[in-house]
Amino acid sequence: LKIFALNSNRPLAEKIAETVGVPLGKTSVDRFSDGEIRINIDESIRGDNIFIIQSTSAPVNDNLMELLIMVDALRRASAGMINVVIPYYGYARQDRKARSREPITAKLVANMLQTDGVDRVVALDLHAAQIQGFFDIPVDHLMGAPLLADHFIKQGFGSDDVVVSPDHGGVSRARALAEFLKAPIAIIDKRRPRANVAEIMNIIGDVKGKRCLMIDDMIDTAGTITLGAQALMDAGASEVYACCTHPVLSGPAIERIKKSPIKQLVVTDTIQLPKEKQIDKIEQVSVGPLIGDAI
Amino acid sequence: LKIFALNSNRPLAEKIAETVGVPLGKTSVDRFSDGEIRINIDESIRGDNIFIIQSTSAPVNDNLMELLIMVDALRRASAGMINVVIPYYGYARQDRKARSREPITAKLVANMLQTDGVDRVVALDLHAAQIQGFFDIPVDHLMGAPLLADHFIKQGFGSDDVVVSPDHGGVSRARALAEFLKAPIAIIDKRRPRANVAEIMNIIGDVKGKRCLMIDDMIDTAGTITLGAQALMDAGASEVYACCTHPVLSGPAIERIKKSPIKQLVVTDTIQLPKEKQIDKIEQVSVGPLIGDAI
Ligand SMILES: Nc1ncnc2c1ncn2[C@@H]1O[C@H](COP(=O)(O)O)[C@@H](O)[C@H]1O
Ligand SMILES: Nc1ncnc2c1ncn2[C@@H]1O[C@H](COP(=O)(O)O)[C@@H](O)[C@H]1O
Repeated sequence: LKIFALNSNRPLAEKIAETVGVPLGKTSVDRFSDGEIRINIDESIRGDNIFIIQSTSAPVNDNLMELLIMVDALRRASAGMINVVIPYYGYARQDRKARSREPITAKLVANMLQTDGVDRVVALDLHAAQIQGFFDIPVDHLMGAPLLADHFIKQGFGSDDVVVSPDHGGVSRARALAEFLKAPIAIIDKRRPRANVAEIMNIIGDVKGKRCLMIDDMIDTAGTITLGAQALMDAGASEVYACCTHPVLSGPAIERIKKSPIKQLVVTDTIQLPKEKQIDKIEQVSVGPLIGDAI
Repeated sequence: LKIFALNSNRPLAEKIAETVGVPLGKTSVDRFSDGEIRINIDESIRGDNIFIIQSTSAPVNDNLMELLIMVDALRRASAGMINVVIPYYGYARQDRKARSREPITAKLVANMLQTDGVDRVVALDLHAAQIQGFFDIPVDHLMGAPLLADHFIKQGFGSDDVVVSPDHGGVSRARALAEFLKAPIAIIDKRRPRANVAEIMNIIGDVKGKRCLMIDDMIDTAGTITLGAQALMDAGASEVYACCTHPVLSGPAIERIKKSPIKQLVVTDTIQLPKEKQIDKIEQVSVGPLIGDAI
């Protein structure tokens, strides 16, 4: 068993390797002068059972191509099984045609990985579980909720608190977290009465005087979660906490989180956070042991 | 017949569309907040014969993914034939395993395009003609040499001049250009007598007192062409000109060309040159009419 890290998230790869108890494989993955990806694999891998760790987070196209080129190199060097661990699966939101003539990029990515010769995929909290079906190879789909639940239980969260889904698409996820906490759930139900009129945030469930814990699979520009937090406070919540598996945190996200009533945001390390995104309000828990145990 | 331009080289796409006599198709290709590619196709394309114009020049991974996602969207929207015009085919130098455990990224790209549903490829001066064989679909392989020859013939080049290949790998290309000019050829033969000793530039052929015209398929960091130009001057050439199809011009290229004895470098527009690379010594001739006539 050999584990190789590419460039998206080396710290996580190191934690996974530590859990498994093997050193990371020797490679260098850098760029030629013109920006093309150059990969060197500096040890024999013939017949080996390989795990590549790579999130397809931003810069998504570079990270995806690193992964595809690495798989190509390994396959041509007669690797045994090629397992790719994609802690964050980019392009997952483009998983259906919502309008005419849209691409389904999540499927395109799946096709590319398969054509490339990947034998098995390990992913975490895919934006839609249906993405498993985009592959004809085994997909291990791990969940971040138990890990996040654990974290909050240790902080004293439980049946007195409310788990809140920030939209009706995320209710099952909130349900799962609530089971661990033995807590009730509430749902923020957004509705636009007519076009060009501000959305109404209607809260289904009882949050008055309660500590609320919002959960989502990913937080990107943080609009949903910060508006939701405000709506919960307006409805009389005592405090609002939030958590998600994938901290995409693009564009105005950090500013919005800073300004929001969210007391603490707990995220995992499926996506590596650059320094400027490591703010006090954000705490990271590692999926390294979870993934390490799964492989 | 519909022609769509992506982001790598819109000016060239416009010239192609002009030659063909159709307007460019309506699309927008931009980015979501997190950097993922967003494509909108703003006109019906059902059953249409489509041409997409995209060079996979730097940023190569972004340009390649734009192309793949566009093809996915078109195919899902029931396009008729999908032709992709790749004036510059990136990753072409990674066309074989030169060392153990190297990828063959040029083949990976070919596989991705085919899996994606491309029906036909139009390319220009592939770094190795063998890349045609990486595809099981038709590949039209156009040549820049006649265009470059034309340019130099108009400037008075002919049988009194010498066409020079900057290395032994490019002799057939030099031969082709020389046929047009009815000129003799010479070859710069680099040899490293032993490891850690400077290369010796040996010139095969007669260049003394002659005007030399060097040709290559691409100029990347411009090391080969500028050292070659100096070697030609040292061997008594009266003047040195250079030309290539693909002006990659990365890293130190522009500085090297400025400092070199090259009087003029003629390139095509398969790769769009940013302002800072449009220096006096470099002249661009368009492959727009050539490609327009071929499609
Ligand atoms: N990277 C992205 N950022 C924002 N929106 C996206 C992104 N990728 C896809 N989408 C859009 O998000 C919608 C799907 O999001 P969801 O409803 O949360 O599954 C689709 O309409 C997509 O067009
Ligand atoms: N983008 C690139 N820039 C520089 N060298 C490259 C690039 N891609 C591949 N190569 C290397 O260039 C060699 C092939 O170049 P050539 O001999 O001109 O066909 C191979 O050894 C490759 O490893």
